[in-house]
Amino acid sequence: MADAITPRQNDYSQWYLDVVRHAKLADYSPVRGCMIIRPTGYALWENMQRALDDMFKATGHENVYFPLFIPQSFMAREAEHVEGFAKECAVITHSRLKLDPELGLIADPDSKLDENLVVRPTSETIMWDTYAKWIQSWRDLPLKYNQWANVVRWEMRTRLFLRTMEFLWQEGHTAHATRDEAVAETLQMLNVYATFAEEWMAMPVIKGVKSASERFAGAVDTYCIEALMQDGKALQAGTSHFLGQNFAKAFDCQFQNRDNELEYVWATSWGVSTRLIGALIMVHSDDQGLVLPPRLAPTQVVLIPIHRSEEDRKAVVEEAQAIREELQAAGIRIRIDDREGYRPGWKFNEYEVQGVPIRLALGPRDVSNGTVELARRDTREKSSASREGLAEHIVTLLDAIQSGLYDRALAYREANTRVVDDYDTFKRVLDEEGGFIRMHWDGTPETEARIKEETKATVRCIPVEGTWPDDEVPGVDPVSGAPSERRVLFARAY
Amino acid sequence: MADAITPRQNDYSQWYLDVVRHAKLADYSPVRGCMIIRPTGYALWENMQRALDDMFKATGHENVYFPLFIPQSFMAREAEHVEGFAKECAVITHSRLKLDPELGLIADPDSKLDENLVVRPTSETIMWDTYAKWIQSWRDLPLKYNQWANVVRWEMRTRLFLRTMEFLWQEGHTAHATRDEAVAETLQMLNVYATFAEEWMAMPVIKGVKSASERFAGAVDTYCIEALMQDGKALQAGTSHFLGQNFAKAFDCQFQNRDNELEYVWATSWGVSTRLIGALIMVHSDDQGLVLPPRLAPTQVVLIPIHRSEEDRKAVVEEAQAIREELQAAGIRIRIDDREGYRPGWKFNEYEVQGVPIRLALGPRDVSNGTVELARRDTREKSSASREGLAEHIVTLLDAIQSGLYDRALAYREANTRVVDDYDTFKRVLDEEGGFIRMHWDGTPETEARIKEETKATVRCIPVEGTWPDDEVPGVDPVSGAPSERRVLFARAY
Repeated sequence: MADAITPRQNDYSQWYLDVVRHAKLADYSPVRGCMIIRPTGYALWENMQRALDDMFKATGHENVYFPLFIPQSFMAREAEHVEGFAKECAVITHSRLKLDPELGLIADPDSKLDENLVVRPTSETIMWDTYAKWIQSWRDLPLKYNQWANVVRWEMRTRLFLRTMEFLWQEGHTAHATRDEAVAETLQMLNVYATFAEEWMAMPVIKGVKSASERFAGAVDTYCIEALMQDGKALQAGTSHFLGQNFAKAFDCQFQNRDNELEYVWATSWGVSTRLIGALIMVHSDDQGLVLPPRLAPTQVVLIPIHRSEEDRKAVVEEAQAIREELQAAGIRIRIDDREGYRPGWKFNEYEVQGVPIRLALGPRDVSNGTVELARRDTREKSSASREGLAEHIVTLLDAIQSGLYDRALAYREANTRVVDDYDTFKRVLDEEGGFIRMHWDGTPETEARIKEETKATVRCIPVEGTWPDDEVPGVDPVSGAPSERRVLFARAY
Repeated sequence: MADAITPRQNDYSQWYLDVVRHAKLADYSPVRGCMIIRPTGYALWENMQRALDDMFKATGHENVYFPLFIPQSFMAREAEHVEGFAKECAVITHSRLKLDPELGLIADPDSKLDENLVVRPTSETIMWDTYAKWIQSWRDLPLKYNQWANVVRWEMRTRLFLRTMEFLWQEGHTAHATRDEAVAETLQMLNVYATFAEEWMAMPVIKGVKSASERFAGAVDTYCIEALMQDGKALQAGTSHFLGQNFAKAFDCQFQNRDNELEYVWATSWGVSTRLIGALIMVHSDDQGLVLPPRLAPTQVVLIPIHRSEEDRKAVVEEAQAIREELQAAGIRIRIDDREGYRPGWKFNEYEVQGVPIRLALGPRDVSNGTVELARRDTREKSSASREGLAEHIVTLLDAIQSGLYDRALAYREANTRVVDDYDTFKRVLDEEGGFIRMHWDGTPETEARIKEETKATVRCIPVEGTWPDDEVPGVDPVSGAPSERRVLFARAY
């Protein structure tokens, strides 16, 4: 860990891993592809959870908890669903271990299950099996449930936070009496995610709908938010699915409508995961380590007392505690690091790597001058701040840092979003610049597949109306030469 | 669900299940032994989590997250641990499903894992494997981590909340430089649990240490809190383990102490689970349904507006909203139920079953009189409360209900805790009265096993010093006739 962080220019992928490890956010575990989320990483996740959970509750959702295990047969009930998930399911076949004198510890053959269980990769099936029992009448609708849970998808290539075999997420699963209501719910949650990304994570996103090939297995429409990382690659940061009546039909969930007729229930599901932490890192951080938006930072301000003599110590620590009290009273998450055995310079570096938005240093001279040394993590500017009105100053500064990070990320995205109308330029831009490309597409999976094959770029989404009105015009797909209804958003992606 | 709750006298076990189902706390799932926690049950768990999490953080703990899966070989590293858990492990053997033309969906034989994984029944092994990498020097200690997680233990006989195959819990895992510090941590967390049980759950508990046969698999000492249910059976509500150096030795976790010598690290672990919800139900609820202590109740006050004419409706709803605002401003969790299509009597019953501590009913006459009808769930007393100073009155009343529930449970426990000095009386009391029995025990596993065999009662714990000073005197074990150091606590238990 004493080694430095690899600069982004040299090896972006290694830079990312270095930041995760040096900032002590997470570590690989002895189980292939599973991660250990360390205290700083988990505190960040807790802050994300709290903000999202408040938004879910404010939009009328309640939390529930459904089982981790799903009977194997459930997976087969929705044809596309099993197609999408069968290849990445952890399968439980036995319920006991046994110490065999020759083989050592083995799965006890006598404990073989009658029906295998899979560890949930997502919970549509088990929830809809139960919803079918709970929903009889229009009076039972809507059902607007969410759960915070772990899920497992057996991924071959994993990367801390971005793609891990087990990850933490929330999954909303709602049931509605009408198609319109379900579509409105899908869009509402898409907007909740976009608001969270922009206002909390300071990460601008494009809202849109996925092409058929990128749709969730079992959905009618998958909406998503797409963000641009600093290496010019896109990252899907959240999805909201309109499931139509697919799961209701697969699990025979009908209800009596107001006209006393039986109808299938309309469904949505939507989720974000610990992957958001990966996005957060890649949008804001730099070669010195993590950069965190203040609204999500577990520690917003760290104060490092500096003193040599015992006499100095007393005055400095007393003043530090007074500052802490004032800042806490103003709602700021501040911590004092007065650990012995570490030099101030070492501590400065430590909190820079960990992305604490504001660092204060307080020495004996500051105490007598009524000042404190202040360093911003985002710009790395240092200044001397007056002790008088410090809390107010910092509240303002935290807001400025939050919006500064957003503005910087937005400026980057705008500079790296290009309208392209021919395929050669498309390829050149991808290789030389990266970023988002707005280009006409004929809407066929064939052309989409060809582009992916030839360039590794995919249709990230068809942006929602009004994103770029210029793009909502007919044209020609430069790859196939066929007519196109509108431009869509392409990029190479995580 | 329209059927009534079975009275406790008729069938306590059925009463319990009826309360859980009628109050919509939880339901069985299609996966044997796994439960679905419904919104009311989950909101209760969230309140418990928040209170406990604050206490953990106030005592210097940080949250982390370790993988769900544990390599099978890890389980074998600590001899007693594998002995204790091998027989109840869900075993993952494959990583894919496959649609076989003849057999249907099966675990793909080509995806068989090189090493089986088990779903964590508890996380000592995987955490200590990693702690061994994180801890080198005394400077790295203590490590005080906790995680909120799901765990799986393959139970044959399950019961909603009390014993389910998958359950939610928190598990603290700490690492220390000295034995004394680890013992102090064990006791500190025992006290945190006792405080939570008493101050939040209004559930009096006895703190003590387990006999060897009831110890956690791999622990040196297991401390516990024991509560008495209304049917006279005991329930272990939380455990805190002093693990000595057992796991450090099993995973080779050594550190350099201040004298530059290598030493094994000292460990603790401690946990409480959704089982607490079962305890909460069984301590306070009655034949009308759930009774909740106000500090944990998701809804503390429900207000039901009563009106027939549209003209009345307007005045009543306006007043109801004013009351809600006032009560919310006083920090009270209040909800108005103005749903149409349900009669007030139906609603009254609904909230009684769901255990909402205070029910308010507001009609047109109340509005003109400046009153509101108030019903307490715990005593089922009704009164007319003045609109003037209502928030203050309710804050006081919620406190009174909270302490009233505690006092009632304590009185019940005291009336049902008996000193017994001969085995015949012991058996008679168990059969006729139940409850806790304080009796001498010679300290041998043989006598303990004989008592369990003959009476189904077990040593619940050896209470901590000062619980009953009268019991801390030598005597004679009435079962074996052998000398005894002190009386210990017996009961039949869940």
